[in-house]
Amino acid sequence: METERRLEALGLRLTPIDASYALDTSGAKFVSHLAVGELLYLSGTVPELDGETYLNGVVGDDLTLEQGYEAARYAALSSLTALKHALGDLDRVRQVVQLTGWVNSAFGFNDQPRVINGATDLLVEVFGAAGLGTRAAIGCRGLAYNASVEIVLVVRFDGGPVTDPRPTLGASR
Amino acid sequence: METERRLEALGLRLTPIDASYALDTSGAKFVSHLAVGELLYLSGTVPELDGETYLNGVVGDDLTLEQGYEAARYAALSSLTALKHALGDLDRVRQVVQLTGWVNSAFGFNDQPRVINGATDLLVEVFGAAGLGTRAAIGCRGLAYNASVEIVLVVRFDGGPVTDPRPTLGASR
Amino acid sequence: METERRLEALGLRLTPIDASYALDTSGAKFVSHLAVGELLYLSGTVPELDGETYLNGVVGDDLTLEQGYEAARYAALSSLTALKHALGDLDRVRQVVQLTGWVNSAFGFNDQPRVINGATDLLVEVFGAAGLGTRAAIGCRGLAYNASVEIVLVVRFDGGPVTDPRPTLGASR
Repeated sequence: METERRLEALGLRLTPIDASYALDTSGAKFVSHLAVGELLYLSGTVPELDGETYLNGVVGDDLTLEQGYEAARYAALSSLTALKHALGDLDRVRQVVQLTGWVNSAFGFNDQPRVINGATDLLVEVFGAAGLGTRAAIGCRGLAYNASVEIVLVVRFDGGPVTDPRPTLGASR
Repeated sequence: METERRLEALGLRLTPIDASYALDTSGAKFVSHLAVGELLYLSGTVPELDGETYLNGVVGDDLTLEQGYEAARYAALSSLTALKHALGDLDRVRQVVQLTGWVNSAFGFNDQPRVINGATDLLVEVFGAAGLGTRAAIGCRGLAYNASVEIVLVVRFDGGPVTDPRPTLGASR
Repeated sequence: METERRLEALGLRLTPIDASYALDTSGAKFVSHLAVGELLYLSGTVPELDGETYLNGVVGDDLTLEQGYEAARYAALSSLTALKHALGDLDRVRQVVQLTGWVNSAFGFNDQPRVINGATDLLVEVFGAAGLGTRAAIGCRGLAYNASVEIVLVVRFDGGPVTDPRPTLGASR
């Protein structure tokens, strides 16, 4: 549980699975994670705090770059919640493979990379070199619940058994 | 052919490959599907009906949420056409792994998840639990032919031989 | 080095790794490429020329369709630079598997496919049939540095050793 201890040392804690699950009201039919061999695919996640979405809005209009960075940090934290649910122990993550970060962006806002740094900084803080994967940071128009950031992760894990995924855990509900 | 019978029971039918192929007029150089091991990657697909694109426009401006849902259903149907072409029999799909759904969105429209439900609902109706994969639903600005929705699928299949892909079958042409 | 000779015959050359690396000023924590088995994932790349970003702006506003096509060609060239760094020899690429192309798009611009043709045309020119993979072309709002196009590639390669990835080489910095 070393990874989780590093997370706690940063003053962050994983959203309880049930609180996260309770956010879903759309009846959407998808799962929080799915394993193929040693790759684990996650559904998109948005920023959450205390079982509520957090820092909603359009970056460059409603939110500053700094708030966008914070939002990306919490969107990545929601992905860590999904990984914890899938694997039981975050130490089972071998490598972040691919991170795609969407930023709900104002017209003319082009600092998507600095926003998504909030997510990739957190992953390296908790996983070390294993948190350093490939990345794309893209501006988009509109996200679930007016979220400001959404993160989609693919990770390599130790290949052992995974928990049955909770339907519609995570974001994009 | 059980999966295809379920599709017919829903009143839906696959677009003939040749009609779908005829939609391409841009000379784009890509293929409808590509297999790596037991994963099958599909190109993006847009809504089609009777060999024409269907329900074009911007959701929240030109189209209602309900029309967007319907469009997502038909975009997923176009992906099923590509899967049928690739695998011969849709029963060879073992699991939907990853669905990314883009919604051509009006400013301020944040119901992308309820639009993309049109795609994931259909996949679960025809594949059952095997249709329940990971998902992200993202608002975008502009899609091929002014399509309202585009779906990109990655599925796990039985790993047997696949048909030679048709160049530029599907969408994003 | 046949692939690279074809590139030179087209009048194109790879950006030196160090020039490309020097573009990064954001301190972003990610890597240019990451291998899992015989799949190589790349980070998003934007158009670059002589160590500078190239053809910035919004397609349909600041740039014409033709300029967007040219930008997509150079965004793909940046991906080839990353592949060269990863594999040493571009001939080690077995197959382009998945290309996602984002176009920084004006309101009402729907010609994303013809823009992204600039990327897929180049890949087929240099790799032949191995350059013909799956594709999606999506309009977005905002990209790093006000880039007009960003390309994300997944390729299958010969599975041999890869170079240690350069942190934050490529785009989306």
